[in-house]
Amino acid sequence: MLTFDRGTAELEQFIITETAFDAQAEGGLEAIFCQGNGYLGQRAALEERYAGQARNLFVTGTFDRFHDSEVTELPNLPDLTNLTLTVDGVPFSMERGELVSCTRELNLQTGELTRRVLWRPPHGGLLTLCFRRFVSLAREHLLGFQVEVTCTEAGCAVTVESGIDGTVTNSGTQHLCERVKRLIGGRILFMEEETVQSGIGCRLHAAHTFAVDGCEAAVRRLPIMRRRYLGEAVSLPLQKGQTLRVEKLCCVSTTRDLAPTDGVALLYEAAAMGYGGLLRESAAAWAALWATQDIRIDARDGYDQVAVRFALYHLNIMVKKDDDRVGIGAKGLSGEGYKGHSFWDTEIFLLPYYTFTQPDTARTLLRYRHRILDGARRKARDHGYRGAMYPWESAWIDDGEVTPLFGGADIVTGECTPILTGHIEQHITADIAYAVWQYAQATGDAAFMDAFGWEILTETGRFWASRATWDEQRQAYVIRDVIGPDEYKEHVDNNAYTNYMAENNMRLALQKLNDPDLRHIADGLWLPAPDENGVIPQFDGYMALQAIDLTRYRHAESVGDIFKDYNLAQINGLQVSKQSDTVLLLLLLAERFPPEVRRQSYLFYEARTLHDSSLSKATHCVLAQDLGLDGVAYDYFRAACAVDLPISAPKSAEGIHSAAMGGIWQCVAYGFAGVRMVDGALRIAPRLPAGWRSLAFRIVWQMQPLAVEADASGVRVTNLGSLSVSVCLYGQSAVIAGGATFAAAAPA
Amino acid sequence: MLTFDRGTAELEQFIITETAFDAQAEGGLEAIFCQGNGYLGQRAALEERYAGQARNLFVTGTFDRFHDSEVTELPNLPDLTNLTLTVDGVPFSMERGELVSCTRELNLQTGELTRRVLWRPPHGGLLTLCFRRFVSLAREHLLGFQVEVTCTEAGCAVTVESGIDGTVTNSGTQHLCERVKRLIGGRILFMEEETVQSGIGCRLHAAHTFAVDGCEAAVRRLPIMRRRYLGEAVSLPLQKGQTLRVEKLCCVSTTRDLAPTDGVALLYEAAAMGYGGLLRESAAAWAALWATQDIRIDARDGYDQVAVRFALYHLNIMVKKDDDRVGIGAKGLSGEGYKGHSFWDTEIFLLPYYTFTQPDTARTLLRYRHRILDGARRKARDHGYRGAMYPWESAWIDDGEVTPLFGGADIVTGECTPILTGHIEQHITADIAYAVWQYAQATGDAAFMDAFGWEILTETGRFWASRATWDEQRQAYVIRDVIGPDEYKEHVDNNAYTNYMAENNMRLALQKLNDPDLRHIADGLWLPAPDENGVIPQFDGYMALQAIDLTRYRHAESVGDIFKDYNLAQINGLQVSKQSDTVLLLLLLAERFPPEVRRQSYLFYEARTLHDSSLSKATHCVLAQDLGLDGVAYDYFRAACAVDLPISAPKSAEGIHSAAMGGIWQCVAYGFAGVRMVDGALRIAPRLPAGWRSLAFRIVWQMQPLAVEADASGVRVTNLGSLSVSVCLYGQSAVIAGGATFAAAAPA
Repeated sequence: MLTFDRGTAELEQFIITETAFDAQAEGGLEAIFCQGNGYLGQRAALEERYAGQARNLFVTGTFDRFHDSEVTELPNLPDLTNLTLTVDGVPFSMERGELVSCTRELNLQTGELTRRVLWRPPHGGLLTLCFRRFVSLAREHLLGFQVEVTCTEAGCAVTVESGIDGTVTNSGTQHLCERVKRLIGGRILFMEEETVQSGIGCRLHAAHTFAVDGCEAAVRRLPIMRRRYLGEAVSLPLQKGQTLRVEKLCCVSTTRDLAPTDGVALLYEAAAMGYGGLLRESAAAWAALWATQDIRIDARDGYDQVAVRFALYHLNIMVKKDDDRVGIGAKGLSGEGYKGHSFWDTEIFLLPYYTFTQPDTARTLLRYRHRILDGARRKARDHGYRGAMYPWESAWIDDGEVTPLFGGADIVTGECTPILTGHIEQHITADIAYAVWQYAQATGDAAFMDAFGWEILTETGRFWASRATWDEQRQAYVIRDVIGPDEYKEHVDNNAYTNYMAENNMRLALQKLNDPDLRHIADGLWLPAPDENGVIPQFDGYMALQAIDLTRYRHAESVGDIFKDYNLAQINGLQVSKQSDTVLLLLLLAERFPPEVRRQSYLFYEARTLHDSSLSKATHCVLAQDLGLDGVAYDYFRAACAVDLPISAPKSAEGIHSAAMGGIWQCVAYGFAGVRMVDGALRIAPRLPAGWRSLAFRIVWQMQPLAVEADASGVRVTNLGSLSVSVCLYGQSAVIAGGATFAAAAPA
Repeated sequence: MLTFDRGTAELEQFIITETAFDAQAEGGLEAIFCQGNGYLGQRAALEERYAGQARNLFVTGTFDRFHDSEVTELPNLPDLTNLTLTVDGVPFSMERGELVSCTRELNLQTGELTRRVLWRPPHGGLLTLCFRRFVSLAREHLLGFQVEVTCTEAGCAVTVESGIDGTVTNSGTQHLCERVKRLIGGRILFMEEETVQSGIGCRLHAAHTFAVDGCEAAVRRLPIMRRRYLGEAVSLPLQKGQTLRVEKLCCVSTTRDLAPTDGVALLYEAAAMGYGGLLRESAAAWAALWATQDIRIDARDGYDQVAVRFALYHLNIMVKKDDDRVGIGAKGLSGEGYKGHSFWDTEIFLLPYYTFTQPDTARTLLRYRHRILDGARRKARDHGYRGAMYPWESAWIDDGEVTPLFGGADIVTGECTPILTGHIEQHITADIAYAVWQYAQATGDAAFMDAFGWEILTETGRFWASRATWDEQRQAYVIRDVIGPDEYKEHVDNNAYTNYMAENNMRLALQKLNDPDLRHIADGLWLPAPDENGVIPQFDGYMALQAIDLTRYRHAESVGDIFKDYNLAQINGLQVSKQSDTVLLLLLLAERFPPEVRRQSYLFYEARTLHDSSLSKATHCVLAQDLGLDGVAYDYFRAACAVDLPISAPKSAEGIHSAAMGGIWQCVAYGFAGVRMVDGALRIAPRLPAGWRSLAFRIVWQMQPLAVEADASGVRVTNLGSLSVSVCLYGQSAVIAGGATFAAAAPA
């Protein structure tokens, strides 16, 4: 069970603690406790080996395709976390001997992960162990590990074996071939491997130091080389009460990096600073980040504060902020799930956070979408369309569409289920256009628009014009045979989300293009209207589908439980949604729908949604808040936090859910703080959950940082920039000069 | 600790028992308890998962090369042994809850492996588990698994998940890409994969049945498909005392098989017989094999009997007796070590067993050497020689030399140690010629010689003639820059073993060829003569090397311990041998050396040998027995048995040592029974160890099976064939007619 510091000391609420060890829960914890810096992601696999560990180390952008039968993915690089500690001949394992206690703590403030263990070996004795590690935020190639061992009751003989282990795979797929393995200068372990298809050189350096009671120990290092492994072993006796400290400093670099790295020089420099010095340097970088990115919540339940900081932590380690050749993986760099590919998750669920808090990062991510335009044009051409049709899944800049073709088992036929998203889940093209426009509005970055943005908007607009077809009967342009955001419905016509977003996309293009055909199609596109109950039909014929009792699936232990009873073809005929679809539309294009339509549609679809996608809950939170369903909104916020940070067993074994992290920010900013862009203007209208006393955070608007503080009485906005900005607080418009503060009382 | 049935009931001494569970020892046990039939080898990885398991399934001949940077090897095929048993939500693991008892038994007589476990889950209750499995000797594509679970103290909810797991690799190298995964007819799991370079299709079928208290259970099967995995899960409640029996029958076939297999049809047929019926069928095949292959020893210590049967068991599952496209791997099909490659081990250590007990198998193996002649000619040509220079390591028939280029770490330089055996360990060419001749002499198989044998002998003879160079100073032909069998000495000149065996090879070629040049070189080849102490120098300059105290290395826990203090370049300068070298020569070409030279040379080198090769001990046993050092011989026999069947921790994690198994047969037949071919005649002269009351076994001589029974008083030989054979018993020559028995008393 995960626990959190619920003390009142606000700054202490940065700690996620796990006080038990359960091998079954390790997968999820490896992802939750994942560390990184945007360049690399290191899963929190324990140093010693357990069955089922995923010892993942990913470097952004190192995509490789193992074989024609697979799609490209981020390869799992050789493991650096391994360290075997043998005490009097018995390898340390928490499943051996007696585990007196085990506590793990991820400190979100410093980025350090600590594990403290009290262990009795099978043959007696008592050991105190402390494992620490961090991924440097100051030096993106650097990882540090430290292990301290104390024989508490009697002396013992300790052997440490540690190294670079290239036997890891991506669930069995091996992307790397061995190139070089050697020991440099008697001290630095060096392994170079190369990806089999993309030919990327991956270099790993590691160096160990050994100290007893603070003094460097004169040890004999025995190099160990075997297939795909290079390590060293050191044996030494420990007196009762003595503490052995092992430090393992590592450097990871690749030939695809923005700039080359001299791993040996880096490790020599790192060795001079030691684990402690390097950690302090990295913690300082974290402190600087938190200074602008923190969201402070004074809440009855400390979980809320920690969960939001947890989301911010992951939002800042999943993205390489200065590299426009890479997107954000659906699992960040925290697991093999979704292969490191980028989806619409980035634009709809993550970009709002970056656009509103780190516009430079948002620009990098949108420039990535510009860099993959050629692949999008190719995909459009291959499908017989014009303009740019974005890949459903994207990897390296010239990969184009990389969606796999098959998924899990079909319960009825016994065959693999084909994955159609790469062909017909097309709304991503409109989603990217939406995000470009949102960025442009929020930042006023005309240079970006001139160089990149308008090209994306016009090319995607052209795509939709070629995608729509004329329906003689309706006398309208229609979009047939798509998958909307709700992926439990395949081959639908006129999905409301898709059609409205496509129309929005064409309108954006028309701001630049004088194209009568495009205007004609935009004007004539079929936009599903609300029915007599004020409910917008999700797609043609939705209302005629069979409704079933969803209770058991909505309360199921795991997502996708309905597939144990129905296959996708059957689910296609039921009024059941995987995730928000029309509801999301009601959030993104809120101004297009009257309040009553939003309310009725929300209530209708909410009852039919399983939230089998991690994208769903935050959207429901924000919409419920918009509709004044405050208790429901808070419950959905908590559910959104629990996607990756549950109190009980974590379910993130394949990696954390990147988009859900962005969703948590949306719950707080869009939802409880009422931050929203309305007709190009900034609106702030906080209405805090009952258990929250205050909320403070920053956003950036028109490149000016604004500090927002809210409580039950109202909101104060301080412009930390130098230029004036216009804001609308609870409907009150105000121009706030640089350095000035404006306060507004909450409406009664 | 391994234990053995030491009862007097002779037929019960077929059981190897392990009564503890220690995850560290599992690797060795997986190899010791390996099952197979020559077509496939299945390591004894436990059904549930533990860190460090090697879930190896190999099919002979399916060689694949992952990448140019690696050499070809036997790929690890998708795992069939996996089966996860979850009891009230907790997956069964012997490292979880309380392991009350665990007993494993390999029955060498039937080929069945059984594990009985009494386990208390962490939350209470008591389970009785029995796991059984076999690899069919009657149907080479078939494997059977059975699990029985009884909730002894209270009812429980059980979930079984089992399938085909393609995430396994060869220490991280993945040879297979996914082709097909599907469920056939709702019952048969089917996975097809293909090797990436050699394009071999590998097909795995698996089907489960579930019965409670003997009645088929109506269960709901939930198919589970994910990357490289296909399985099914079944959940059901068990009442107190009820027994769930799961049977998993599997079929493995490849597109490289001698004949295609219909896996679905095979599994339907198998399902009708059930685990029990299939096991009985396979046990009957084993019984037929034991009827001719068993060696019965009435010994004071039952270990001797079991160890010899253990060797015979592995000698009969490591070879595909009817397929001349494949050799025997240095680890058989029991582990990844040596990549499934064939070495001189086959000809010098294994073939004597087959030649003297299963001449058909010996012929198959020698025809394999004939089929790879082209690769041997290519290697000779590439090295600038004539004739056929056999690869040091061989794989598929057209692979040629497949020795890897690098090994473990060099303690001094920190670099990988280059492996030179593929270039300069050349004696294998003469070893193959020796084995061909031995086979021809023992069988009288002129047809084989005409079709295959003479071509091998003449081509290899030609190689040596081109390999030798004229030494003006010595006025002799010399062979410079080789590695002899003692691999701790690289780049030596005139290695005695190599030169004598090369000369022997040329003499054999000259029986067919009238080639004056060849004769001139054979006559003029430098053959190191004994020194003044009667010791044959291992190579030029050996006697001048430094002698060091080897005590600590000879008593080291693991082999290769000397490399912790010296690198290979340094060891090259010391009088220290990895293994028998000149001593082996004294056995193979015994008639060439006077008894005193054999004795003095043996004593000299024995003191300088670390036995860091598994090939060494058996040779020392036989030579010690020849020299009348009976106690020493018995000690070496026990040491040879302990290579793979130690009483304490097993060391065969990378696979059993094939050659050592052949060595055990040589200890018994060549050593204690004194079976030897002398000048083309069969000699039998038993002299049993002190602890042995009697010894009985069969050999085949001139295609006639002979039953040999020996005790302290003498020997009885019964000719079970129809044609007369000549034998020499304790120096007494006799002709034994078909059906007749001849007895001879041991000399006083």
